Amino acid sequence: MNGAESLVRTLVAGGVEVCFTNPGTSEMHFVAALDRVEGMRCVLCLFEGGATGAADGYARMADKPASTLLHLGPGLANGLANLHNARRARSPLVNIVGEHATYHRQYDAPLTSDIEGLAKPMSAWVRTGLSSAEIGRDGADAIAAARTAPGGVATLILPANTAWDPGTGIAPVPAIPERVKAGDEALREAVKALSSGEPVLLHLGDKAVRKEGRQIADRIARKTGAKLLAMTSNARIDRGVGTVPIERLPYPIDQAIEALKGFRHIILIGATQPVGFFAYPGKPSLLAPEGCRTITLATPEQDQIDALERLAEAVNAPEAALPDLGIRPEIPTSEKLDQDAIGAVIGALIPEGAVICDESLTTGRNYFGLTKASAPHSWLQLSGGSIGVGIPMATGAAVASPGRKVINLQADGSGLYTVQALWTQARERLDVVTVVWSNRAYAILRGELANVGAHNPGPKAIGMLSLDDPAIDWVSLARGFGVDGRRVETLPAFIDALKHGIAEKGPYLIEVVL
Amino acid sequence: MNGAESLVRTLVAGGVEVCFTNPGTSEMHFVAALDRVEGMRCVLCLFEGGATGAADGYARMADKPASTLLHLGPGLANGLANLHNARRARSPLVNIVGEHATYHRQYDAPLTSDIEGLAKPMSAWVRTGLSSAEIGRDGADAIAAARTAPGGVATLILPANTAWDPGTGIAPVPAIPERVKAGDEALREAVKALSSGEPVLLHLGDKAVRKEGRQIADRIARKTGAKLLAMTSNARIDRGVGTVPIERLPYPIDQAIEALKGFRHIILIGATQPVGFFAYPGKPSLLAPEGCRTITLATPEQDQIDALERLAEAVNAPEAALPDLGIRPEIPTSEKLDQDAIGAVIGALIPEGAVICDESLTTGRNYFGLTKASAPHSWLQLSGGSIGVGIPMATGAAVASPGRKVINLQADGSGLYTVQALWTQARERLDVVTVVWSNRAYAILRGELANVGAHNPGPKAIGMLSLDDPAIDWVSLARGFGVDGRRVETLPAFIDALKHGIAEKGPYLIEVVL
Repeated sequence: MNGAESLVRTLVAGGVEVCFTNPGTSEMHFVAALDRVEGMRCVLCLFEGGATGAADGYARMADKPASTLLHLGPGLANGLANLHNARRARSPLVNIVGEHATYHRQYDAPLTSDIEGLAKPMSAWVRTGLSSAEIGRDGADAIAAARTAPGGVATLILPANTAWDPGTGIAPVPAIPERVKAGDEALREAVKALSSGEPVLLHLGDKAVRKEGRQIADRIARKTGAKLLAMTSNARIDRGVGTVPIERLPYPIDQAIEALKGFRHIILIGATQPVGFFAYPGKPSLLAPEGCRTITLATPEQDQIDALERLAEAVNAPEAALPDLGIRPEIPTSEKLDQDAIGAVIGALIPEGAVICDESLTTGRNYFGLTKASAPHSWLQLSGGSIGVGIPMATGAAVASPGRKVINLQADGSGLYTVQALWTQARERLDVVTVVWSNRAYAILRGELANVGAHNPGPKAIGMLSLDDPAIDWVSLARGFGVDGRRVETLPAFIDALKHGIAEKGPYLIEVVL
Repeated sequence: MNGAESLVRTLVAGGVEVCFTNPGTSEMHFVAALDRVEGMRCVLCLFEGGATGAADGYARMADKPASTLLHLGPGLANGLANLHNARRARSPLVNIVGEHATYHRQYDAPLTSDIEGLAKPMSAWVRTGLSSAEIGRDGADAIAAARTAPGGVATLILPANTAWDPGTGIAPVPAIPERVKAGDEALREAVKALSSGEPVLLHLGDKAVRKEGRQIADRIARKTGAKLLAMTSNARIDRGVGTVPIERLPYPIDQAIEALKGFRHIILIGATQPVGFFAYPGKPSLLAPEGCRTITLATPEQDQIDALERLAEAVNAPEAALPDLGIRPEIPTSEKLDQDAIGAVIGALIPEGAVICDESLTTGRNYFGLTKASAPHSWLQLSGGSIGVGIPMATGAAVASPGRKVINLQADGSGLYTVQALWTQARERLDVVTVVWSNRAYAILRGELANVGAHNPGPKAIGMLSLDDPAIDWVSLARGFGVDGRRVETLPAFIDALKHGIAEKGPYLIEVVL
């Protein structure tokens, strides 16, 4: 057994069952070992951002890490943007990067680069393997690091000779530390705020925003009059019928400031303090109103469910029926593709158990609200602002969720960063409907030009935000990658296409021309 | 005038006339400034690897830097793989990366990351702007850093407030140091080797492998009996009729070792010592035969042409007529798409002044030899082994070379990393023919599996190297990005398609099914 086989056996024994890969020469022994070990599904990606984004989507749905397998510094580099999103989503992820043999690095061959230097900004843990005898243990440590709360990217750099020299078999995964409980002092502060009679916000993120956390938070809110609000970007919210609805802090800075106006206390549970997504001239970085006090009840590292339960007990919040979600939208009968009508269609058609991947950005700002009373589903968002996660995330979510329909709501500009992931959906026969909002622009930036004070943009600036010359033909792109699809320009055509995509198994793409 | 306008004016005054960009919110003031400043062509890319690869191709043809404009850490990350190639090609390049306002960084907004950390591995120079009053000077320093021999990637990080706060106008570019001359001791060593009667190799890279350097090296070789050999990967070789032909050190390790066998002295002029592209079990990292002495006459930083001239004078090498290039290939009349026939077609049809971008990898190993007697042309290669440079490099080369036909010889697996760059070719009406060698595999890795000793690969391993399920439809992909094209499966069809692509203006794609 060589080092590569030790590593693969260790990964499988440690619960890592999927490898999203785009390998090269230095990774060939790892690839060869896959045929000698049962239990590892290997998913080929045409581009590394597809692999890392898929591993993120997988982790969000499976609540455990997949691995990647990337080729040296440049392969890692191509995966970093979606590792950034995974880092912000706190997705557990074992990121394996091939490297030259340890003795070969000194000669600065063309593909040599500082892999640790590249990995550190986007990783919670980085290690370069030193020998084939220890590479299994390194893999086990990587799994533990990825799974340690709050979850993170563990990058293991695998020199070629640590893969081909003799290995030592399966290494056990070290014990993973329990989540630390929230402190009593923070709990007392939160109770005091909730008893003050002043407006209080329970700001939920991470695990606290999942189904169970919202249910407890809702009891606290009903008892105390506090409001609930999720962060702007959330890794996963399980929602729809049978769950507590929640709104999110809006992305546009003026709306975000407005949403927080009037609160005197913000209690953070799994959330971080509200800050501007960007800085804007003359606007604050910190969004809470002046004089508002922020109390961190539970950080993302801590046990947020325990903290919520203790808080509910401390304020004597009784068990409660679920709040009324309102009526599930009906399919509109209009012709026009306006956003309310589109959102209503989505709200009406989401099938039970669906996984929604949301990289719809400007187009989809009201879809979240219009789907709150839909059939139960999971909602995954772009978490770190690094656009190009949608198609890969949907790919990984589908691998993690057999039997569940994945619907990817995809802005066109963002989708073009990692469009190659459509091919992996075709190759793996994944059950994903990609809906592309084809507005043929970086629409979000048109608003941002004004927000940063760059008014009256000239033709060059406007040109840099336009994708209409030539217009992208998404149906051709999908066909090129082996995915069937159609283009729609009216609401009835969209309804028909979405019904078709949901009913059929396998990948399908709908280009919605806006 | 704000900082962004100071920077753009400084760039234009410093000879930076093109910006390859994929901007975001933090770069909006730079984008807005483009309309207030004459002389900067702004080329929009759908993906940052397209921008950096294009800037590399531009620099190779223009011999001066373009700038990029990328969005924060993730945008830089997406551009790093082709910055790696630019670094290995020693292309001058001003790499501008937007960043949060200086006062906003501390709040760790979702898009925050360690941009300097990401930039350093692929940059010769990195600086984060501190104030709008100094950002023009920072830009001028970046130009100087990019242009200082041997040429490199200068990364300037541009916090949003250094762009929107008041600027101070055009900053002059500092004096760029002259290339250092080769030392007399190295010259004496080289002369001694050439006078020893033992076999000597003149190994050429960087500027020494360009047209003028080869001509001087050829005189030395004829006088002394030394052989000439270029590096495996070269940024640019101007070749064909009217130039000295040169072979390259082969990529496959056994062939590379064979090519160097018997030499007792290797004189490096702009080249680095021959090392294995990868390490392979049981094969050496250093490829020169045992007992062979390596003499560095001129490093890539030094004045290689001066070193060659002094060496020619020292060995009394007379002026000489150009060596015979042999006969330009004729168009074969066979049907079959074998590599010799394809190479002959290319050799026959290359138009005068063409720029060939070569990322053909396994498919194209004999194209270089078969084009040595073609009409004069420039040959640009993948320089750092980071695949996915071809389509972007052709894009940038075309921007730098109006009136010259660009032909991109593109392996299919590699082309899929940055296929989005086809759209920029369509948008800018660039005169590029992309020829995709559609073997539907990572063919190079099939050989590498055996080379690293992973024999008898199983179905999973073979699956990870196969791109045939489903087969990529390149003509559909091209159409999706607004580029016309056709698929060919016979040699006559290829000949017809290549003639058409060369005759017509604008981008065209030919998928050659192998």
